[in-house]
Amino acid sequence: MPKESQVHSSHFIRDFKLILDNCSPTSSPYFIGHMTSSLPNFLLELAKLITEKNQNLVKVETSKSFTKMELDCLYMLHNLIYQNHDYFYSEVNLNSQFSLGSFCSGGTIANLTALWAARNNLLGPSKNFQGVQSEGVVAALRYYGYKNLAVIVSERAHYSIKKSVDILGLGINIIHTIPTDKDHKIRTDLLEQKMNELESQQIKVLTIVGIAGSTETGHVDDLLTMSIIAKKYQCHFHVDAAWGGATMTSARYKHILKGIEQADSVTVDAHKQFYIPMGLGMILFKKPQLSKNITHHANYILRKNSNDLGRFSIEGSRSGMSLMLYVSFKVFGLNGYELLINESIEKAKQFSRMIKESKNFQLITHPELCILTYRYLPNKIQKLINRDNNDYIHTKINDLNVKIQEKQKQNGNSFVSRTKLFNYQYGYTMDVFRVVLANPLTQEKHLKKILHEQEKIGQNLFDTLVKFTEKECEYN
Amino acid sequence: MPKESQVHSSHFIRDFKLILDNCSPTSSPYFIGHMTSSLPNFLLELAKLITEKNQNLVKVETSKSFTKMELDCLYMLHNLIYQNHDYFYSEVNLNSQFSLGSFCSGGTIANLTALWAARNNLLGPSKNFQGVQSEGVVAALRYYGYKNLAVIVSERAHYSIKKSVDILGLGINIIHTIPTDKDHKIRTDLLEQKMNELESQQIKVLTIVGIAGSTETGHVDDLLTMSIIAKKYQCHFHVDAAWGGATMTSARYKHILKGIEQADSVTVDAHKQFYIPMGLGMILFKKPQLSKNITHHANYILRKNSNDLGRFSIEGSRSGMSLMLYVSFKVFGLNGYELLINESIEKAKQFSRMIKESKNFQLITHPELCILTYRYLPNKIQKLINRDNNDYIHTKINDLNVKIQEKQKQNGNSFVSRTKLFNYQYGYTMDVFRVVLANPLTQEKHLKKILHEQEKIGQNLFDTLVKFTEKECEYN
Repeated sequence: MPKESQVHSSHFIRDFKLILDNCSPTSSPYFIGHMTSSLPNFLLELAKLITEKNQNLVKVETSKSFTKMELDCLYMLHNLIYQNHDYFYSEVNLNSQFSLGSFCSGGTIANLTALWAARNNLLGPSKNFQGVQSEGVVAALRYYGYKNLAVIVSERAHYSIKKSVDILGLGINIIHTIPTDKDHKIRTDLLEQKMNELESQQIKVLTIVGIAGSTETGHVDDLLTMSIIAKKYQCHFHVDAAWGGATMTSARYKHILKGIEQADSVTVDAHKQFYIPMGLGMILFKKPQLSKNITHHANYILRKNSNDLGRFSIEGSRSGMSLMLYVSFKVFGLNGYELLINESIEKAKQFSRMIKESKNFQLITHPELCILTYRYLPNKIQKLINRDNNDYIHTKINDLNVKIQEKQKQNGNSFVSRTKLFNYQYGYTMDVFRVVLANPLTQEKHLKKILHEQEKIGQNLFDTLVKFTEKECEYN
Repeated sequence: MPKESQVHSSHFIRDFKLILDNCSPTSSPYFIGHMTSSLPNFLLELAKLITEKNQNLVKVETSKSFTKMELDCLYMLHNLIYQNHDYFYSEVNLNSQFSLGSFCSGGTIANLTALWAARNNLLGPSKNFQGVQSEGVVAALRYYGYKNLAVIVSERAHYSIKKSVDILGLGINIIHTIPTDKDHKIRTDLLEQKMNELESQQIKVLTIVGIAGSTETGHVDDLLTMSIIAKKYQCHFHVDAAWGGATMTSARYKHILKGIEQADSVTVDAHKQFYIPMGLGMILFKKPQLSKNITHHANYILRKNSNDLGRFSIEGSRSGMSLMLYVSFKVFGLNGYELLINESIEKAKQFSRMIKESKNFQLITHPELCILTYRYLPNKIQKLINRDNNDYIHTKINDLNVKIQEKQKQNGNSFVSRTKLFNYQYGYTMDVFRVVLANPLTQEKHLKKILHEQEKIGQNLFDTLVKFTEKECEYN
């Protein structure tokens, strides 16, 4: 009989193998449902190096050259978004009291940091008032005479905005959701109307949030118009460019984000279209002075006149993962990133054409960046949609699409994700497939196979679901 | 002349080498000033694997087997702290509406999560009130009729408590800091007095925070007495065991944390004494039901009846780093961790004896875990301390210690950190050396060398600083 420890270690090796064999194939060219992609190989060796060096970026003492490297990264990203003059950056460099932004574990923490800084700035210290940081929201609203605050964003906002507003103690009821237009961008006319309405009610807008690459459809708000409205009403303008930020590397497509350079703060995820592994995000501040609203100090760490990066971040101890972004920037260069971005957008356009040309699929949202949505809608059902008994048919089509996606996931050959989108034309909420075409390994042949598989699944399910419906419709 | 791209790549290689060569030697046996350590070698290969697999733990779809693995980790850690019966854990497993806790990037996010959950639980939905999550702090305090909230913690609290209270919109003025006793533990008599006082003022205590391994001195509060007080006043009890949590693996020393099993929430950092690289922390909830106070959902992700881990965390997208903890637990076992913990504590005790035996150093705080503080205080100055002109001498001694630490850091051979501690006996704030003896590579010979180097630096500086002082003292 084997010894107990032998039994244990063989169990462990079996379990470990199971974990590795059964994880999600995030880098597969057929796994196009989420925001993960295949990654450049050199990152594997870098991951080892970062673990070996095990720097803690909270403090210069525990990260010496890495602190400088991270400051370089912040500069590169800030420059990419805001494109300030060199003297601006050299001045910031000389002044260690402020920061261009900070790295964090991802977009949610970045959005939270932005809203935190905006809140503390709006409700800052004044005569006879120590500021919201010391006295809290209750005293701050009383002092400033605001009946309430408001956060304004389109219906396509990422759920982290809600989470942040909850955490910040403001209550998610202060979020005013503005409908989107036919292009899935915030209705800026309704935004301005809302600003007016709130002003007349003595409700102060804490921030307008623009979306640069919505999670569901990849669309970018009209950031320029939003920035003009924010300026007019003197409120903070935050842009959640977690997905779309990397588009700034593309001379061909960066115009889509026009106006982002007017944002007071911008969220960017390196682990999205900068092709860095989970989890590296960042928040950038147009004016570094904004960072002073969120500083905290401690005796043993984060001394006031240091260069310690931990003074400007929610997180304390933090890994040296930004080295991956630093190296990727040097290896790819802006040109390399532009290639990746352009390819992803053009691949999405190609896929949208494939969908439109197919008889059995319906394109739901056009790709502005590399995200699009569509659904299975065989030719023979399309005529049914415009009949009177819409609701019944719509429910059936939704069911069919949900089931196709589930079956496809279960088969394990390919993967698209699924979301719900309200369709103004039909006046109901559709279940749709959502795909993100960021993986450079995904080619036309993979996309064809994915559609082919969905078509086959759809045809099989059609018999049990929709044929039946067709009959019902005829009898009704 | 070389081509432009050649110039660039040679620059890059030079810069990259500079970064690697000049980072902090966090794994060196002489680098005992911070909470980083040398790490087991197998983690390097794991880092590569985790990067290769690039799972996103926000959702089962993007992390399949990793979600299950992480749930196993949460179970192991919860069990380590709370030691519930098996039926408790199988019930939680069956109920995907709650969670035992969540992984995050580090202790700060964990502490923030705990206070967020406590706040939303205290000010939860009720008749005619949607809860603080929806209506915010202003409406919540009004509804519940509290004049204000309070957070109570000892003067040794980590600065992340302040940061969390700021972020949560409560204002750091609500933090009531309780002095510590001669053993650097919270004065529970003063804590109870404060609870009484606040109750009579209609100020509701949101949470008492116990410290299990303070950052500065490594001491552990009397968690049992604190838990009894929290129960008596019916308030949340949070324990920040970011440092000390791993001590629960030690049969010999876990008694130090007695009472932690009564805490409503516990912060533990895997990247501290679980010997995992930056940054992996976790929050554990005694009652999984607490987690429902912080849930957020979204259509495209985090469906209500899923097992998606992202429903219970501040962060959204998150890496599969917990695999490192999973593997370490399997490879080391509890016995392996116990060995590491016991060794670290006993090494600190050994170092404290070395300091006491030396003529030129003064032990300031005894190690309860593996952290201690001391300072340079040559024999010949000791007699001066008790004279009348204390303040002058004390300032000089502080200067001397600050300069020794700076010079030692500059030399680059060894490193201790530095903090300020108020000394009740002398009635003034001392600058002291702080060391963390967690690195298994650090042995007696390294500690001897460190003391020797400090002694030499001290002697050199003594001439310019203290000899002068001695004369002054004599003339005064």
